[in-house]
Amino acid sequence: MLTITAPSKSVPLQQVKLDDPFWSQYVKLVREVVIPYQYEALHDRIPGVEPSHAIANLRIAAGRAQGEFGGFVFQDSDLAKWMEAAAYSIAVHPDADLENKVDEIIDMIEEAQQPDGYFNTYFTIKEPQKRWTNLTDCHELYCAGHLMEAAVAYYQATGKRKLLDIVCRFADYIDAVFGPEEGKIHGFDGHQEIELALVKLYEVTGEERYLKLSQYFIDQRGTEPHFFLEEWERRGRTSFFSRTSAPPHLDYYQSHIPVREQREAVGHSVRAVYMYTAMADLAARTNDAQLLEACQALWRNIVHKQMYVTGGIGSTHHGEAFTFDYDLPNDTVYSETCASIGLIFFARRMLQLFPNSEYADVMERALYNTVIGSMAKDGRHFFYVNPLEVWPDASRKNPGKHHIKPVRPGWFACACCPPNVARLMSSLGEYVYTSSSDTLFTHLYIGGEANVNFGDVPVKVVQNSDLPWGSSVSMTVQPEQETEWTIAVRIPGWSRGQAVLRVNGEEMDLNAVVKDGYAYLRRVWADGDTLSLELSTAVQVLRSHPHLRANAGKVAIQRGPIVYCLESVDHGAPVSSILLASEPNLKAQFHPDLLGGATVIEGEGWLEESDDWKDDLYRASAKKLRPVTIKAIPYYLWGNRGENEMAVWIREAPALT
Amino acid sequence: MLTITAPSKSVPLQQVKLDDPFWSQYVKLVREVVIPYQYEALHDRIPGVEPSHAIANLRIAAGRAQGEFGGFVFQDSDLAKWMEAAAYSIAVHPDADLENKVDEIIDMIEEAQQPDGYFNTYFTIKEPQKRWTNLTDCHELYCAGHLMEAAVAYYQATGKRKLLDIVCRFADYIDAVFGPEEGKIHGFDGHQEIELALVKLYEVTGEERYLKLSQYFIDQRGTEPHFFLEEWERRGRTSFFSRTSAPPHLDYYQSHIPVREQREAVGHSVRAVYMYTAMADLAARTNDAQLLEACQALWRNIVHKQMYVTGGIGSTHHGEAFTFDYDLPNDTVYSETCASIGLIFFARRMLQLFPNSEYADVMERALYNTVIGSMAKDGRHFFYVNPLEVWPDASRKNPGKHHIKPVRPGWFACACCPPNVARLMSSLGEYVYTSSSDTLFTHLYIGGEANVNFGDVPVKVVQNSDLPWGSSVSMTVQPEQETEWTIAVRIPGWSRGQAVLRVNGEEMDLNAVVKDGYAYLRRVWADGDTLSLELSTAVQVLRSHPHLRANAGKVAIQRGPIVYCLESVDHGAPVSSILLASEPNLKAQFHPDLLGGATVIEGEGWLEESDDWKDDLYRASAKKLRPVTIKAIPYYLWGNRGENEMAVWIREAPALT
Repeated sequence: MLTITAPSKSVPLQQVKLDDPFWSQYVKLVREVVIPYQYEALHDRIPGVEPSHAIANLRIAAGRAQGEFGGFVFQDSDLAKWMEAAAYSIAVHPDADLENKVDEIIDMIEEAQQPDGYFNTYFTIKEPQKRWTNLTDCHELYCAGHLMEAAVAYYQATGKRKLLDIVCRFADYIDAVFGPEEGKIHGFDGHQEIELALVKLYEVTGEERYLKLSQYFIDQRGTEPHFFLEEWERRGRTSFFSRTSAPPHLDYYQSHIPVREQREAVGHSVRAVYMYTAMADLAARTNDAQLLEACQALWRNIVHKQMYVTGGIGSTHHGEAFTFDYDLPNDTVYSETCASIGLIFFARRMLQLFPNSEYADVMERALYNTVIGSMAKDGRHFFYVNPLEVWPDASRKNPGKHHIKPVRPGWFACACCPPNVARLMSSLGEYVYTSSSDTLFTHLYIGGEANVNFGDVPVKVVQNSDLPWGSSVSMTVQPEQETEWTIAVRIPGWSRGQAVLRVNGEEMDLNAVVKDGYAYLRRVWADGDTLSLELSTAVQVLRSHPHLRANAGKVAIQRGPIVYCLESVDHGAPVSSILLASEPNLKAQFHPDLLGGATVIEGEGWLEESDDWKDDLYRASAKKLRPVTIKAIPYYLWGNRGENEMAVWIREAPALT
Repeated sequence: MLTITAPSKSVPLQQVKLDDPFWSQYVKLVREVVIPYQYEALHDRIPGVEPSHAIANLRIAAGRAQGEFGGFVFQDSDLAKWMEAAAYSIAVHPDADLENKVDEIIDMIEEAQQPDGYFNTYFTIKEPQKRWTNLTDCHELYCAGHLMEAAVAYYQATGKRKLLDIVCRFADYIDAVFGPEEGKIHGFDGHQEIELALVKLYEVTGEERYLKLSQYFIDQRGTEPHFFLEEWERRGRTSFFSRTSAPPHLDYYQSHIPVREQREAVGHSVRAVYMYTAMADLAARTNDAQLLEACQALWRNIVHKQMYVTGGIGSTHHGEAFTFDYDLPNDTVYSETCASIGLIFFARRMLQLFPNSEYADVMERALYNTVIGSMAKDGRHFFYVNPLEVWPDASRKNPGKHHIKPVRPGWFACACCPPNVARLMSSLGEYVYTSSSDTLFTHLYIGGEANVNFGDVPVKVVQNSDLPWGSSVSMTVQPEQETEWTIAVRIPGWSRGQAVLRVNGEEMDLNAVVKDGYAYLRRVWADGDTLSLELSTAVQVLRSHPHLRANAGKVAIQRGPIVYCLESVDHGAPVSSILLASEPNLKAQFHPDLLGGATVIEGEGWLEESDDWKDDLYRASAKKLRPVTIKAIPYYLWGNRGENEMAVWIREAPALT
């Protein structure tokens, strides 16, 4: 039976201070630009941007203003995600002005909360009689979950209980409405989120019933008779979003079979990874072998069959969804920013259950590529969809690619992704380390310090990293007194067999100390002990499993955690006309002037000439190739130099006899 | 100024008797299976097939039955296309029983025709007050056009005037309703068809006003103020097919700019090519330089920028439409059967204007590949969409490919394609030859005889052809008396530089006699003179223009007019794992047992092994390749051996230093 072997917990945000040449700029951008910009957007004060209506709805629901509800049925969640981001930011960088802004919003939420504890501006303003009549479509518990996450974060950041008390009243009310008992609704939400939020609420309050309610939602999902179908019949076979009379597609909601029987990732990818996150959370607290197995199988299915090399997931924009094994088209991809963030959530939970570096490898892959790639340097433009191949003309003129944007657009009416990036970046410190009673795990190489206790002994670990352009990491240990404990250091997948680990200058035998991708160093650590890790700087040429049809004959370039891409602006030709040579002699060089500085990779390739083709579309003659220098830039920087073609997977000239 | 240089006309169906080892089987299949099967389908008598409602609607409209209208608003056109096919079949193969069936239907049409001449079962049964209120969506003139085509064909086949008189009354009524005069509707149909039909009606009746009405519809299209937008406003901004309040997308209907200003093929591809056909028809009769230029430019745009190597057109299922230059994705393609048939119509008209073999090359390409490929050997299953790359799992599980079917489905509710195939195949004789006062042009190599007159002299030309598997064509000339005239023999594009033409055994100097792809042989022809043509049997490896991104690094195999494909059933692996060797040593061999007999091409290639990949999705090691024999079958035979993967464009191992 599967059990948890070496559980650990994240080192909390307030115990981690990040100070990193690469990442601090993103954390700062989120704090100084993204959070203030989103605050203005939520107030409908950004000229030329579609109004969010989020604050306006709240003011109406609070009785402070008159008017109509505006925006999507789930509009409240944008505000909640912003508040959560603001809370994390305050936790690591106190800001009285920002705290006042959040407090003002909390006051309005309190005013808008119904006497029974219910809170949702859509159903309060627009359809009060329809509360809990369409869980499938209407995101009521989803919005509740995001408010709970914001409340927990704000309480942890400030110690203020008002919002926490609001969400506890709301959670108590939900607990009175949903559950297995007769007279309660035997249901669950169309968009998973409350499940993971209730675990957080349980953690901070210690109230077991929140954990049980989360477990109930997970256990009830996908059982027969099916709640969504019964609900659909009760509504007269209608749906909120369309006039179709078709029943809901249960796999879109991961409710096609009971959750613990699921082995393949299906349906809307954000919903999926939010659910898997909650499953792992619950498994961590219940050591439930069935849930653990489902989590591991779903993880494996995603990572080994359905994940883009950029850490993106979701192969189709129809339903923003997974499709099936090895179906990873690069140019009709969805790869929503929120889905990669959810995958990072899931990875962090899996790391807490099983310290296996694959989880951290994926977390890092999603973070360095899709997540930061989704955000423009100005903090005001975001990709929701993160393609691996773009032809701007096709985005405009082929309707099957209209969802693929060649440059980062501004804030959307459905602004799920930008506040999700904000809350992840402002809580980034939580993702670097986990600890157990005697072990500190280092999952990410991001500079800063972590403060933990082993027994009664406070320990500080100071990390320096020059990733991703360099490859050197060092850590200095500063325990208040000498004591024996373990530091477990991740050896990234991209550096396997090429890492050198030293303690106080002495090289360790990695074969002897590495298990599941972590080097376990147990000793009595003294103040000033140092640990250094030299990782690989090799440029890797990646190939895909032969069943991944979309990448046949193509390679991707990776160096460290950074995946590269080609843009046509650097080649004066469609990237599809370029081949990487079979011995490309790839060289990395830092270009300080490229979009704030980045390492560029150059090498040898071939270019198909188009001059002599004239009017021919097809012909029976060989193509003319001439040697060219190919130039690859980090994927996360694509689309920042105007519209142009981009590809992660590029053709290679195979080495054949 | 552009003018028509050497106009010719098709040799009419009754003057051509086909007798060809390859094509006669299709003509026979259509006569013996497809036409009877469709007759039953139109009567809703095929078990397990969605009812057509076409005859049921007609019986209701004729007052012979009670009931509701069923099927699409354009359902009448399925019946009309079937009648047209039946008429052609009767013309070349008299069949009293079939003629009785058509006559019975004509009787009902007469009964259903309104006193003013109007005929349309939808508007007669369901919405009589809404006649002519939604030309954009409702296909009224489209259905009228198909009835006109049927009437002309049936009159030409049988000499019976009843249906011709019905459509003349209808056309006269339409002429009274539409036109530039005050009080008339200044409009045109959303789906072009009546324009080409009115030219046929003009040809058979000699009534100039039908030609003028066709010209009016063409000239009015795309002018300001826009009829579709005005109509949409009058209807209260509604559409027939959706609840959207968006105005019609004018380029979908090729009405975004005036027709004679159009230079790029846009929008719904069937509508487009039906319109271009009518434009060429009108230009032939008016020698209108602007229309001629538009026809030539639109032809060039399609054939040199937007046509699949199979002769398919339409790059997206969204709107069943063209997208833009060089956008020819193989796996999300539309390539509707009807669109290739329309392209053949257009090609035939262009041939009549300008004897250039490119028009016939495209006609042949569409015919031998997409058109016959659309039909199963049983005559009861048809592709509407003709993909160049299929992964059956993706068709089921990736919604962006749901329209790509891996095997030919049965009759659809919207059964546009099967009756279109039937009417083309049963009139195939019309596509082989055109003639002018002193020249017989041979455009296609299909055995049989053609009877024409030069001056007063009847001439019979008997053609024998062993295409597509062989490459020998011979023609015997049988004039009733010796007289001087020209026979113009097409040298196909795929045999350029490799054709040998002999007259009575004497080899001709092609350089001296070929112009625009036709060898002009002018002489006093005597009874028994023979002409023989040896064409190339070389296997060609085709490559695409470098701007055609979807085919980068890939080749297609063609031999004679036949385009080939790979199916995974012959290779035990995904076709994407196969590479054609750089010197593939391709050999053609006839396989009598393959689906009725076909020439198969085998050669050398490489296969990527998947065994050692296990759970890896990406890795930094070279792929293992082993030599394999690749086996290519004719594209038109794909999908006949159960579901499996197929690709026309296959990877090649480029010959690089």
